[in-house]
Amino acid sequence: MNLIILTETDRMAENTFRLVDNRAEHIRSVLKLGVGDTVLVGLLNGPQCTAEIVQSESGLIELKCSNWRETASPKPEIDLICALPRPQTLKKVLLTCAMMGVRSLHLIRANRVEKSYFQSPLIQTENQLPFLIEGLAQGKLTRLPIVTVHDRFRRFFEDEVDQIGCDAGSRSLRLLCSPETEATLDTVYDQGADEMLVAVGPEGGWVPFETELIQSVGFRPFTLGRWTLRVEHAVTAALSQAELLRLMSITRSRKNP
Amino acid sequence: MNLIILTETDRMAENTFRLVDNRAEHIRSVLKLGVGDTVLVGLLNGPQCTAEIVQSESGLIELKCSNWRETASPKPEIDLICALPRPQTLKKVLLTCAMMGVRSLHLIRANRVEKSYFQSPLIQTENQLPFLIEGLAQGKLTRLPIVTVHDRFRRFFEDEVDQIGCDAGSRSLRLLCSPETEATLDTVYDQGADEMLVAVGPEGGWVPFETELIQSVGFRPFTLGRWTLRVEHAVTAALSQAELLRLMSITRSRKNP
Repeated sequence: MNLIILTETDRMAENTFRLVDNRAEHIRSVLKLGVGDTVLVGLLNGPQCTAEIVQSESGLIELKCSNWRETASPKPEIDLICALPRPQTLKKVLLTCAMMGVRSLHLIRANRVEKSYFQSPLIQTENQLPFLIEGLAQGKLTRLPIVTVHDRFRRFFEDEVDQIGCDAGSRSLRLLCSPETEATLDTVYDQGADEMLVAVGPEGGWVPFETELIQSVGFRPFTLGRWTLRVEHAVTAALSQAELLRLMSITRSRKNP
Repeated sequence: MNLIILTETDRMAENTFRLVDNRAEHIRSVLKLGVGDTVLVGLLNGPQCTAEIVQSESGLIELKCSNWRETASPKPEIDLICALPRPQTLKKVLLTCAMMGVRSLHLIRANRVEKSYFQSPLIQTENQLPFLIEGLAQGKLTRLPIVTVHDRFRRFFEDEVDQIGCDAGSRSLRLLCSPETEATLDTVYDQGADEMLVAVGPEGGWVPFETELIQSVGFRPFTLGRWTLRVEHAVTAALSQAELLRLMSITRSRKNP
C-alpha cells in the first residue's frame, strides 16, 4: 500500500477517519508508524492528503486529515475494452486498471470467451472492489475505474461504444491490440487525442468476424511486439507503450513549442 | 499453453515423445486434439516443430516430430537484474521473463529486500522451473532464461555485472528503471546495442547509496511513466517500451537504409 485508501464509512468527523481492518495493521506492522507520524491517504474518488496518526491500538488507527489536494487525471484518458477473461486473470486486470489510472473498463463477450466466465462472482461490482482498491493503493490513485459488463458483442461495438468517454468536443483515438498487424503503436498514435480507447482480445484471439467489425467502427490495429502475451500482460504493455509515446510527445512539444 | 514444451525425459525415440502429465490433458481436454491432429511443440532449449499426435489415451499423448526449426533470438538480447522480490512476485517475474524472451535474470540483494526472501524455496532452480516453462509455453519460446541469485549487492555491481552477456565485441546498453528521473527510455535508448541490461528495484525502491553505485557503473536511469508500478508490472512495462523503440528503429532503418 503506497497510499491508504479511505472511504466515507471510515469517516468519524469532518477530517477524522478511523481504520479497523488490514489498513490499520498495515500502518502499524508494515509501515511501523505510530501516534504523531504521518501517512499518505486518499479518499476514494476524492482528494489525497498527508494524515497525522492521532490514535494507534492493536487493529485500530485514527487519522486526522488536513490540506486535501485534488489530483488531476492526465490526458489522454484511457478507457479499456477487454474480452472477459477467466476470473483469475480478471483480478489482475482489475488491479492493473486501477493502478494505471484507467477511467473505465468494459468487459465484453467474444466468440472465444467461455460462457461460464459470465457466471463468475467477479462480474458483480462489490466483488471487484477489493482488487480495484488494491490497485489504487499501489498506484497512489483514488479514482475508481468504472467497470461494466456487456454481454452482446455486436451491440457493444455498433452502439454502446459510442457512449464511452464522449466529453463534448473531445478527440478520441480507438486502438486494437492485434498480433496480425505489423503496425506499431507510434504509427497509429495521435498525440492530440484527449481519450484513448484500447481493445484487448481474449486468450486465443478474436475471430475474423470480430476484428472486422471492430476495425469497421474505427479501431486501428497495432502490435505490441514479437511476443505472445497473456491478457494481463497485454494490458500493461499497451498502456506502457502509450505512456512512452505520450511522454515523448510532451518532450517534443517542449522543444518545439 | 500456446506451445507444448518437450524435454529430453519425454523422448522415447529420435523423433517420438510421450507425455503423461498435464500437457497430455491439455492437448486432449483444452485443445481437444486427437490422433492425426497436429500440435505446435518446442524442445526445451531447442528447436520447435509441428508434431503429429500418434497415440491418445486418458493421460497419455504420443507425438511424432518432424521438420524441426530453430528460432533465432532477436537483438538486442535482454538481461534483467531484479532486486529479489517476495516469492509470490518472483513467480510472476519468472513467468514474464520466460514469456518475453529474457536471456538471463539476476536476482540480487538490496537494502529493501527482506532477508527472509533468500530462504524461499523459489531460490532453488528446480522450483523456478515450472514458472519458467509456463512462461515459455505462453510465449511460444523454448530458451530457458538463466536465473542466478547474488547475495552481495556491491560485489554484484562492481564485479559480477561485467560478466553478463559479454559476447565478444557486443555493444551493451545498461538501463536503470527509476522513478526519480524524468528521462524517458527513448532518450537513453541505443538502437545499435546488441544487449540490454535492465535493472528493476525492490518494492520501496533502492536506497540512495544503491542508485549511486548502479549509475556509477554505467546504468542510465529512465522513467517508465507517471505510475507507481509493482515489480512484475515494471518488468513488463520496461520490456514493452524497449520493444516499441526496437520496432520503431527497424521501421526507420527500412525507410532510410
